[in-house]
Amino acid sequence: MTKTINVVQYGLGPIGAESARKLLEKSDNGIRLVGAIDIDPAKVGKDLGEILGMKERLGIVVSNDARTVFRSTQTHVAVHTTSSFLEKVFSQLAQCAESNVNVVSSTEELFYPYDRHPRIAMELDAIAKRNGITIVGTGVNPGFVMDTLPLMATGMCTKIRSITVERVVDASRRRLPLQRKIGAGMSVSDFEEKKKSGTFGHIGLRESLLFIAAGLEWNLQRVEESLAPMIATKDIKTPYFEVARGQVSGIHQIINGYNNATHSLLLDLKMYVGADNPHDSIFVDGDPPIDLEIKTGVFGDSATVAALVNIIPLVVASGPGLMTMKELPVLRSLGS
Amino acid sequence: MTKTINVVQYGLGPIGAESARKLLEKSDNGIRLVGAIDIDPAKVGKDLGEILGMKERLGIVVSNDARTVFRSTQTHVAVHTTSSFLEKVFSQLAQCAESNVNVVSSTEELFYPYDRHPRIAMELDAIAKRNGITIVGTGVNPGFVMDTLPLMATGMCTKIRSITVERVVDASRRRLPLQRKIGAGMSVSDFEEKKKSGTFGHIGLRESLLFIAAGLEWNLQRVEESLAPMIATKDIKTPYFEVARGQVSGIHQIINGYNNATHSLLLDLKMYVGADNPHDSIFVDGDPPIDLEIKTGVFGDSATVAALVNIIPLVVASGPGLMTMKELPVLRSLGS
Repeated sequence: MTKTINVVQYGLGPIGAESARKLLEKSDNGIRLVGAIDIDPAKVGKDLGEILGMKERLGIVVSNDARTVFRSTQTHVAVHTTSSFLEKVFSQLAQCAESNVNVVSSTEELFYPYDRHPRIAMELDAIAKRNGITIVGTGVNPGFVMDTLPLMATGMCTKIRSITVERVVDASRRRLPLQRKIGAGMSVSDFEEKKKSGTFGHIGLRESLLFIAAGLEWNLQRVEESLAPMIATKDIKTPYFEVARGQVSGIHQIINGYNNATHSLLLDLKMYVGADNPHDSIFVDGDPPIDLEIKTGVFGDSATVAALVNIIPLVVASGPGLMTMKELPVLRSLGS
Repeated sequence: MTKTINVVQYGLGPIGAESARKLLEKSDNGIRLVGAIDIDPAKVGKDLGEILGMKERLGIVVSNDARTVFRSTQTHVAVHTTSSFLEKVFSQLAQCAESNVNVVSSTEELFYPYDRHPRIAMELDAIAKRNGITIVGTGVNPGFVMDTLPLMATGMCTKIRSITVERVVDASRRRLPLQRKIGAGMSVSDFEEKKKSGTFGHIGLRESLLFIAAGLEWNLQRVEESLAPMIATKDIKTPYFEVARGQVSGIHQIINGYNNATHSLLLDLKMYVGADNPHDSIFVDGDPPIDLEIKTGVFGDSATVAALVNIIPLVVASGPGLMTMKELPVLRSLGS
């Protein structure tokens, strides 16, 4: 790195706090954490070191005023981790752009926003270009295992007939908000009720599917989604709570996309506490076929934080606009 | 694709001929094969269809005069498959560039030329920039399994301690030149003699290692290489020839790179006829760890051709200069 990149952590939930910790470790790689933003009154005004449970003070006071933080710190990049939903974060992202701050975001709907939110995507692209900055959504899922990695695997093939991606996550090892998000410990009827809200379960599977399709220039005529509960077959105890036999242990979410009768994509995601054989697998039925597995799967929380941190130099070097992972160069770890 | 890309196949060995076949299949994806170049007198002047063993004539006459082919066809991209060695192909690449033709090449030493041939790399970069074209070396190995894919896997990690990549290829299924290149059927003493030539075995392992190191900004203080014969433990028969028990069945090639005492890279390649359990595996000892395997391995010949064809639109869209796979966006299959 030739030039220091000033980074602000925008959002201090579990992922944001871990991101802040990793950013602090990257000072040898040209990353300087210069600010932290959160709206939680319990955090605002406190030193970031205290929020992160560190012994030392960092001299970074958590603020709820993004504009002022950006102005006073000459921020180059905001690592943004506040919500899964694009409508909720639009004004935050727009404000970053208008302050000439590049955005790396964990917002799942931002990973491939052109399908669910085409107007917001167009607006963000325009604001980003007007202000000469880049906005990108990334993470592990969406961001890598069920989309960018399968797309890259197709690069070794011609004549692709289908792609099947399977991810099985043992949620016992994951952060509490995620266990809540997948309904662990609920009754089946509560699960079905909550499902109707439309904001339940894993967010981003549709985005992953449409990202792959766009990368292959496949025009999907039909997309089918389903969300079902996984049921505990025995009592399970996690560090956070217990799931009794017969209760919901997590989710089983599937999305299928069809390009004509001949080409199909299938993404199959199981996230539940006590999962057997957690793994990620990708099968590309092409010429040649690619049969890829990541044993035990990529561990979600730390990988998402790694993706957010590692992409910073690529985003700074990129041309302006709203980008997705297929417009940027291959991600790689930022230093050791 | 909005605009047709005129492509010339430069070199009609086994890989080049297969590339020409695939390019012909990509007319729906904006690729038009407009010319073919080879120096073999048995091919020059003949119709490409005849060379490819097709029934129909293609109206493309194989020529040994690259400059004339480029001028008469308004070539945008040359798919270049003539040699593994950069010194041998330098003038060919320079001529492409001077004819304003982008180059996608299977030349192994071109995949990461900055270590073994820094002066040639500098010259090629200058010529490419002067003529507004892009030059890139790619393929499956080097190009994907032992370099770009491991580098991309690190994108999910922070704190990388080591990377171990293993590729085991059953050479029985591969083209004859490759079986020759790995010494299948030789005596051990002939193998050792041939090894001294320095151009024996797999070319590109060093390039793969230094590509990963450069991607991670690791400064390797020490690089160790070894090349040993694999010995047939029983008689083996391939479609092309026989290997007797005790003869060489292929190669075992290893390269290690060390960044301080704490960080290391290991690439381990076995290519031999009758290989047990062919596969590709990548282990990134990072936070989180990534333990990835491609079952049966990526099949080399067709994957190399796929990589060469698939990268064409990315190269056309890229800025000028000598590039490597880490400067370009994630590779993906060009249409179905």
